Amino acid sequence: MLINHQPAESLSVSDRGFTYGDGVFRTLRASHGQPRLWRWQWQRLAHDCAALGLPLPDVDPLLADITRVCAGIDEATVRITVTRGQGARGYSPASAPGSTLIVQASPYLAAPDSCFRDGIVARLCDWRLALQPRLAGIKHLNRLENVLARAEWTDPAIREGILRDSEGRVIEGTMSNLVICRGGALLTPRLDGAGVAGAVRACLMATLPLQETELRLDELLAADEILCVNSLIGVWPLARLGDWRSRSRTAAEQLAAVLAEAG
Amino acid sequence: MLINHQPAESLSVSDRGFTYGDGVFRTLRASHGQPRLWRWQWQRLAHDCAALGLPLPDVDPLLADITRVCAGIDEATVRITVTRGQGARGYSPASAPGSTLIVQASPYLAAPDSCFRDGIVARLCDWRLALQPRLAGIKHLNRLENVLARAEWTDPAIREGILRDSEGRVIEGTMSNLVICRGGALLTPRLDGAGVAGAVRACLMATLPLQETELRLDELLAADEILCVNSLIGVWPLARLGDWRSRSRTAAEQLAAVLAEAG
Repeated sequence: MLINHQPAESLSVSDRGFTYGDGVFRTLRASHGQPRLWRWQWQRLAHDCAALGLPLPDVDPLLADITRVCAGIDEATVRITVTRGQGARGYSPASAPGSTLIVQASPYLAAPDSCFRDGIVARLCDWRLALQPRLAGIKHLNRLENVLARAEWTDPAIREGILRDSEGRVIEGTMSNLVICRGGALLTPRLDGAGVAGAVRACLMATLPLQETELRLDELLAADEILCVNSLIGVWPLARLGDWRSRSRTAAEQLAAVLAEAG
Repeated sequence: MLINHQPAESLSVSDRGFTYGDGVFRTLRASHGQPRLWRWQWQRLAHDCAALGLPLPDVDPLLADITRVCAGIDEATVRITVTRGQGARGYSPASAPGSTLIVQASPYLAAPDSCFRDGIVARLCDWRLALQPRLAGIKHLNRLENVLARAEWTDPAIREGILRDSEGRVIEGTMSNLVICRGGALLTPRLDGAGVAGAVRACLMATLPLQETELRLDELLAADEILCVNSLIGVWPLARLGDWRSRSRTAAEQLAAVLAEAG
């Protein structure tokens, strides 16, 4: 692990990333020290830092950090965290003129092939995401909603939970973005009130005719295919969601091909 | 500083308090190692741990920790943080069977006497708090809303900002709870959708005929007195809020007397 480009094992407890969740992060896959979908990861990191007024790390030293923490790990899961650094007590960010950059790697743990091949079982979560337009889309460190939604089930056969917002709109999975295919059209929930806009979603939106939309539950359940996407799992088609059953694999294969091509 | 009752300087970066803001905290004042308003601090800590499914620390070792970190600091600001501890990657709290207890002290920095005597200048924040009934009232580590609201101003003459929720209801200050007095009646905003329910507020509600209410902005501005309360500042009456001016000091004196009595 590297903190501000130096080897480290632990973090100051006065870091605002810890005291207030005042920071952002990315989780990505790296192969032989090369981060996958880097263009989109970097785009999202830059967006999120700007949205919270955090300094964006320089890209070349960051890429060098990634290579360094991945040494000896052929396939790695990398987490990049940028916080507002150490500050005096109190919420004012003016007390923290610096920032902290943390880059960590661990071996990538691949899910079974069956997740893509056969599809996964998902559940509809009871948790309702709060509407906060000023934070929507940002992968910030305030992730209690995801934690508590994920706490709704422990059955390992259920691999993802689908989240709605307080108005009942379908937003995302607890750890993934959603894409649905209906009558050949690709749709993804609009994330202007809640949710995290991931790098895979950004890549797919730039590559495919993938339309953002407000998605009601009945519209989700009218889909031919429901797909969970993120940087670690790639694409997981849903086989089942309650009484809903997958009716096609066309979009799953199409999205997987796009991601394979994007590297 | 003590982490799990042991002297420590820093925290594991895989602690879920840092990775997801998965934890709660209290900030309080201690005099000669004795925490003030402890009954209410403890009540709120117990409430918040239960609400997030976090193990509640044992009270006696916690009090011993507070005494220990306050050694040599007559008047201290103490922060107690309880997180879900270290976990594997991923949101599921099932991966983190433990917890982390952090107790820190620093010298208490008293605000000028004029804050109580003359009242403070406050502003009305543009930031709107999201409605999340499942997290409302809890002093959890997801405090980006407070940070970004506090970032709206840097003028040191403005000591607090008043926050409304997305429906326009008045909720709290960025770092304090609100009490208003109108025609002799004491009111405080209901916190079932947003906000942090502090220990001073709990103490005042148990001691005075202080009524929780839904508070619209026009009702706030019809108050004779507006008071900000928390464990470090005690009571700060507002002198000014935009065009609003304080018209009385009765409640300020009454609340200050209650807190002095409560210890």
